[in-house]
Amino acid sequence: MADQRENALQYAHNNKENFLNTYKEILRIPSVSTEKVHRPDIQRAAEWLSAQLRGLGMQKVQLFPTEGSPIVYGEFLGAEGAPTVLVYGHYDVQPVDPVELWKTGPFEPTVIGDDIFARGASDMKGQALITLKAVESLIQTGGMPVNIKWLFEGEEEVGSPNLATFIASHSQLLACDYAINPDSGMIGREYPTITYGLRGLAYFELRVFGPAHDLHSGMFGGVVHNPANALAELIAGMHDKKGRVTLPGFYNRVLPMSQEERDEFARLPTGETDYLEQTGVPALRGEAGYTANEQTGARPTLDVNGLLSGFTGEGSKTVIPAWAMAKLSMRLVPDQDPKKIQKDLVRYLERNAPKDIRWELKSLAGNPASISDRNNPGVQAMAKALETVWGKRPNFKREGGSIPVVGDMQRLLGVESVICGFGLPDDNVHAPNEKQNLPTWYHGIDAYIHFFINLKI
Amino acid sequence: MADQRENALQYAHNNKENFLNTYKEILRIPSVSTEKVHRPDIQRAAEWLSAQLRGLGMQKVQLFPTEGSPIVYGEFLGAEGAPTVLVYGHYDVQPVDPVELWKTGPFEPTVIGDDIFARGASDMKGQALITLKAVESLIQTGGMPVNIKWLFEGEEEVGSPNLATFIASHSQLLACDYAINPDSGMIGREYPTITYGLRGLAYFELRVFGPAHDLHSGMFGGVVHNPANALAELIAGMHDKKGRVTLPGFYNRVLPMSQEERDEFARLPTGETDYLEQTGVPALRGEAGYTANEQTGARPTLDVNGLLSGFTGEGSKTVIPAWAMAKLSMRLVPDQDPKKIQKDLVRYLERNAPKDIRWELKSLAGNPASISDRNNPGVQAMAKALETVWGKRPNFKREGGSIPVVGDMQRLLGVESVICGFGLPDDNVHAPNEKQNLPTWYHGIDAYIHFFINLKI
Repeated sequence: MADQRENALQYAHNNKENFLNTYKEILRIPSVSTEKVHRPDIQRAAEWLSAQLRGLGMQKVQLFPTEGSPIVYGEFLGAEGAPTVLVYGHYDVQPVDPVELWKTGPFEPTVIGDDIFARGASDMKGQALITLKAVESLIQTGGMPVNIKWLFEGEEEVGSPNLATFIASHSQLLACDYAINPDSGMIGREYPTITYGLRGLAYFELRVFGPAHDLHSGMFGGVVHNPANALAELIAGMHDKKGRVTLPGFYNRVLPMSQEERDEFARLPTGETDYLEQTGVPALRGEAGYTANEQTGARPTLDVNGLLSGFTGEGSKTVIPAWAMAKLSMRLVPDQDPKKIQKDLVRYLERNAPKDIRWELKSLAGNPASISDRNNPGVQAMAKALETVWGKRPNFKREGGSIPVVGDMQRLLGVESVICGFGLPDDNVHAPNEKQNLPTWYHGIDAYIHFFINLKI
Repeated sequence: MADQRENALQYAHNNKENFLNTYKEILRIPSVSTEKVHRPDIQRAAEWLSAQLRGLGMQKVQLFPTEGSPIVYGEFLGAEGAPTVLVYGHYDVQPVDPVELWKTGPFEPTVIGDDIFARGASDMKGQALITLKAVESLIQTGGMPVNIKWLFEGEEEVGSPNLATFIASHSQLLACDYAINPDSGMIGREYPTITYGLRGLAYFELRVFGPAHDLHSGMFGGVVHNPANALAELIAGMHDKKGRVTLPGFYNRVLPMSQEERDEFARLPTGETDYLEQTGVPALRGEAGYTANEQTGARPTLDVNGLLSGFTGEGSKTVIPAWAMAKLSMRLVPDQDPKKIQKDLVRYLERNAPKDIRWELKSLAGNPASISDRNNPGVQAMAKALETVWGKRPNFKREGGSIPVVGDMQRLLGVESVICGFGLPDDNVHAPNEKQNLPTWYHGIDAYIHFFINLKI
């Protein structure tokens, strides 16, 4: 086993250039799941992945059609007596708007210095490739030490509408001892990180309707309620002066943090200064009484993700718009329930929306928060792997983002996920100029080689 | 004179079809002044108008270049001893967005029943054509009873940035006894209307900046101030619960209405029911203590004309936007001053904008409100003309919209404007499916024939 460890790491180091070329191939496919025009690219990305799995000698490789993007599956079950690991990933990416702010083509992967720039470089084609290349390194140098199953979906960025159903109806196929989820990141380049908690998400589109059509603001200004003003008033009322969300019952099910957990947050090597640097804002804000890490890790939020109404072009147009729209989302923490949060929002709108406008609310995504057991052998094998590669104990972190599938795996397969990826906080995920740090990416491949071997021992 | 009156009216009635065809010609030119792509169309519209003036036998017809759209001028000064009338008009139109809501092409004029549909049909190519065709009818049947000058601009819909300078520097060329301004409308099809008061306008673009770039709402939600939320809070704070604008000093210079004026508002044949019908809203709103006609005629407003921030496409994108934008405008009444209002807005923002966001304010248009003398002979000549055509005394109205040039003419040329056009409240000006009622349009031509003859008498 010691031999294979060395040989597999050597293989990975000898093939850095090849690995990078394969990485660029998948980055060139614009598999944006939110935009219908990219449906053929979604299909291409799924087929590209299944070809990779076949190339690795995986069996039962197939695309499972869903109502949306296909699910890619493959497995190797030849490591008799060894545990079985289910690797989760997603091959879809976020839209690229505003495209004019990209310095390089979002689907023309470009290496500048230590970084590779492209949509999906960090979230999460890069992380998926790390697992593929770690497995390739093991297979080429003696074979897989553990059994492995792959599950790649193509709808993570639209809230995984078909994934839970698929998992539930294929629980036998997906049965495993551990799930691994590399759709995550590190606190900083020098801080290998295992994520053990994730926030949930409730995402809505709220439309407010006023007059039957756009009106001249001179002829009608003063006698009709402007839906854009009304929307602004509704949004403004969703926070109080202390930064708390005012939806009735919003905090009812929020679990308080234990002192042990607050101590752990305090031990994280990064904090306010890093948030200031990464965001460029002059000052942080949040609920009174919580540190910045606690805010993003363990407290719920409500954010506007988009606004649209009336005339938004160059110059002036004196119109009272017929409607106004906001994309609104809440990050949730245990034990908040997205369905209950939707009811809270509806109740808020029923109480606060004025009678002379009409509103419509559409739910676009909803999943609860989750917390994993930090003491399971999978997490321990990963912690050891990270320590070997980086030379220091990893940090354990509650993440502000949402990975719904982690909760699904717990609920439907009864397995814990080891959440460990190699993105960095300044990777610009979901934003222009997304990137992945390449030295960190290669370290990630080494770490996953160690992890698979550690699991076997 | 009685003969010419009959002959000119007869000429107009015999040429209805020709007049309509000319009308359609100008409606086919997409002279949208807010959009740079339409600059050649602006030029075409100006040249089309100067050709029309030459066709009428006008002299000194020329295009005066400005920093923006050219100004079209022409004159006939052969009516010795008779007064001189300056006709103002604008040949530019509003943008057509949202174009998908148009039932017919916005620049493919289409007659359906009694109406002609096209952008600019009512505001104000249709009204400009009325004056041209009234003058044609007089010239073809004995000649103009009064002297006439024409001033057509192509930037009214972007706030006439070059008009006041032009008027000031050409006061001799434009010297006249009366100005007429047909950029206005009637209360209803059966109610000929002279507008004697106009609201002013102050139009702004407000941008709020938060993080240096879009952020992932999971990783950063809870610690940075979301500029879209901040913008909503700023907008919401601009009105109190009674519908009054809260900008400091906003009402300081608002002239109260006299009882006589309130009685006149009360005598208007239209009111709340008509506003409800024209707008399709379930209920009207406004400041407490004022009727709907008073609100639009004599009270100032603040409306959002547009909102844009973050992700506005199909589906969900979990982004904290880097910035948020609102187009904001105030309708002003005597004696509010747009420059003072801008200061009020800046003071409001300085007081209320949180320190962890940055804001920028750009002024896009500003002009004061105006009130004309209802007893000048020009207004009397028009009142008589309307009574002849419709068989009833016209209504006198304070209009909610803004016609900056009326104030400029008062200030720079020392003349009052007779404001009389033939648009209707349901013409969808500045909105999809703009139209002009054709029987009313033909009545308007008759009315202007009477007006020019009345002026001479």
